[in-house]
Amino acid sequence: METVRDTDVRALCWRDARLHLLDQRSLPAEERWLVLDTATRVAEAIHAMAVRGAPAIGIAAAFGVVLSAQTHAGQPATIRYQRIQADMAQLAAARPTAVNLTWALRRMQRVLDAAPAELTDALLAEAQKMLAEDLTQNLRMGELGAALISPGSAVLTHCNTGSLATGGHGTALGVIRSAWRAGRIARIFATETRPWLQGARLTVWELARDGIPVTLIADSAAAHLMAREGVAWLMVGADRIAANGDVANKIGTYGLALAAHAHGTRVMVVAPSSTVDMGTADGAGIPIENRGGEELLKTAGFAAPPAGVTTFNPVFDITPAKCVDALVTERGIVTAPDRKKMAEVFEKPRLSGTL
Amino acid sequence: METVRDTDVRALCWRDARLHLLDQRSLPAEERWLVLDTATRVAEAIHAMAVRGAPAIGIAAAFGVVLSAQTHAGQPATIRYQRIQADMAQLAAARPTAVNLTWALRRMQRVLDAAPAELTDALLAEAQKMLAEDLTQNLRMGELGAALISPGSAVLTHCNTGSLATGGHGTALGVIRSAWRAGRIARIFATETRPWLQGARLTVWELARDGIPVTLIADSAAAHLMAREGVAWLMVGADRIAANGDVANKIGTYGLALAAHAHGTRVMVVAPSSTVDMGTADGAGIPIENRGGEELLKTAGFAAPPAGVTTFNPVFDITPAKCVDALVTERGIVTAPDRKKMAEVFEKPRLSGTL
Repeated sequence: METVRDTDVRALCWRDARLHLLDQRSLPAEERWLVLDTATRVAEAIHAMAVRGAPAIGIAAAFGVVLSAQTHAGQPATIRYQRIQADMAQLAAARPTAVNLTWALRRMQRVLDAAPAELTDALLAEAQKMLAEDLTQNLRMGELGAALISPGSAVLTHCNTGSLATGGHGTALGVIRSAWRAGRIARIFATETRPWLQGARLTVWELARDGIPVTLIADSAAAHLMAREGVAWLMVGADRIAANGDVANKIGTYGLALAAHAHGTRVMVVAPSSTVDMGTADGAGIPIENRGGEELLKTAGFAAPPAGVTTFNPVFDITPAKCVDALVTERGIVTAPDRKKMAEVFEKPRLSGTL
Repeated sequence: METVRDTDVRALCWRDARLHLLDQRSLPAEERWLVLDTATRVAEAIHAMAVRGAPAIGIAAAFGVVLSAQTHAGQPATIRYQRIQADMAQLAAARPTAVNLTWALRRMQRVLDAAPAELTDALLAEAQKMLAEDLTQNLRMGELGAALISPGSAVLTHCNTGSLATGGHGTALGVIRSAWRAGRIARIFATETRPWLQGARLTVWELARDGIPVTLIADSAAAHLMAREGVAWLMVGADRIAANGDVANKIGTYGLALAAHAHGTRVMVVAPSSTVDMGTADGAGIPIENRGGEELLKTAGFAAPPAGVTTFNPVFDITPAKCVDALVTERGIVTAPDRKKMAEVFEKPRLSGTL
């Protein structure tokens, strides 16, 4: 096994009372950092996908609340509270599917409601804690997930679920990092992940920086890859997991899971418990974001859509729980998740181990 | 129903003793015509995908043989025959998967072997006949296929199988054209078809020119589309169909067929009998072309692959016969094709009707 250094890629950091975001729209061509000083700018950056990945947007939003508290520091307490609430509503509305955004804002709301003497400091401490916890949880999931992978396996991952999508290490890509370092993975395939190319632009860039070899494929080549080359695991993250185990994730995940089912490729979903939404019964209740189709038309070479041409551009889909072989969270692994197993792990805190 | 004019899009034409090819690499930005005067240039144009689509490359190769006969017209008959044979070998090697190329060259070989007095004229007559027949067959398949589509259906098509891919009208897109004109189709969805974007660049352009509305989706959105919107038919062409009904077609077709199976979406394969290869027992015997991954890396924004990054870029896959609900050919429709039904239609010429 070759020696590899730990990744130093980070999606965001707090410095000099500002949120610094690595602008993921510019990668891999350019490493450009945005320095944000208001909650509104953070909401805009989330909406515009300068930062993306369910855990990362939750953390970014938490720092957005810190910025809001800073901005409104000179106001009387009641006014300040109202202004922060308004900023939080704006942050919550930035993107609809990932529940981590709501989850992070709820944590910040609790701090806000406790009305600490040094509100900004208290909010900052909570956001920093969230960031640190996310990294710790990812390292834990990395270990748990890697143990499921038989040595010599080929794996396929979709979208970007690495350091860029989280507080560091990654969810599905964190498991791949951990399993690679443990010598369990023979080959890593990554989809390009149209239309935003999270796989081709971000996953490839991250793995190349870590010295981990990766083979890029078109999204549509996955079924053929499974048929011809054999893939042990499809490894994906999640943007929201419903109470029955249905998984909202990057568009294409569902099709990949159907192809996996036809080829004995197992499906591993890796996500922290902050991605689990026990308040949503099943996938039908998860809002699916549709974005403009400019990316599709632009790539095709159309400056504007010709008459009669429209686009359908959902950016998430729902993979039914029955397609999931293992859900890896920091609380443990849920194999073949269903309503009962999900309730056992996510309605009683601090369980661990395999169910 | 609105009135629509017949398409005037053509992939190629013979004029002034030259083959004129609409360069499909430049569409939709630019309508650039290549004027080719040697078989080598035709082989290069086929290899470089200036012309693509199984029927169109067969026809282009046939005209390539005419150019060869012209080029070598001054030679003694034996030398000329040998030189034409060498050019035909080059044409045959231009792309490996589509059997129409072999089929067209075999037809030209028969003319060559008959040693007519005016060889160039005889070869030209055969190539022109092939072109005309292809259009006639496509119009016939259009009628047959359209009759399978219940009024009000949504259909999804992959790649480009229209006038640009054939002698005119198209195979799967020909059926869509015919069915649209007959008022049977409520909505047409087209995949962008990575990595070469045949759907986003060519199908969208063709349909827009015909005034037929189309909705473009990412390849990876197909399963979600089927789950949420309902799609009656997945409509595809073919590059080669084996004796058992297995279908080689554009990469992604297999994954779409698996998704179709999960959603009650039926799969229609539309191809002339020249695409059927009764000499190949099943899909495992069909060579699958792999192309360089520059397109994947370029789109991602990498000038060159970073260290450790490779690509896997097969441009066709195999859809097993059991995934095909209807094979529409000019000889009739084969429902749920298998070895026996295929033999009945394609080993006895001139059968028609539904089996």
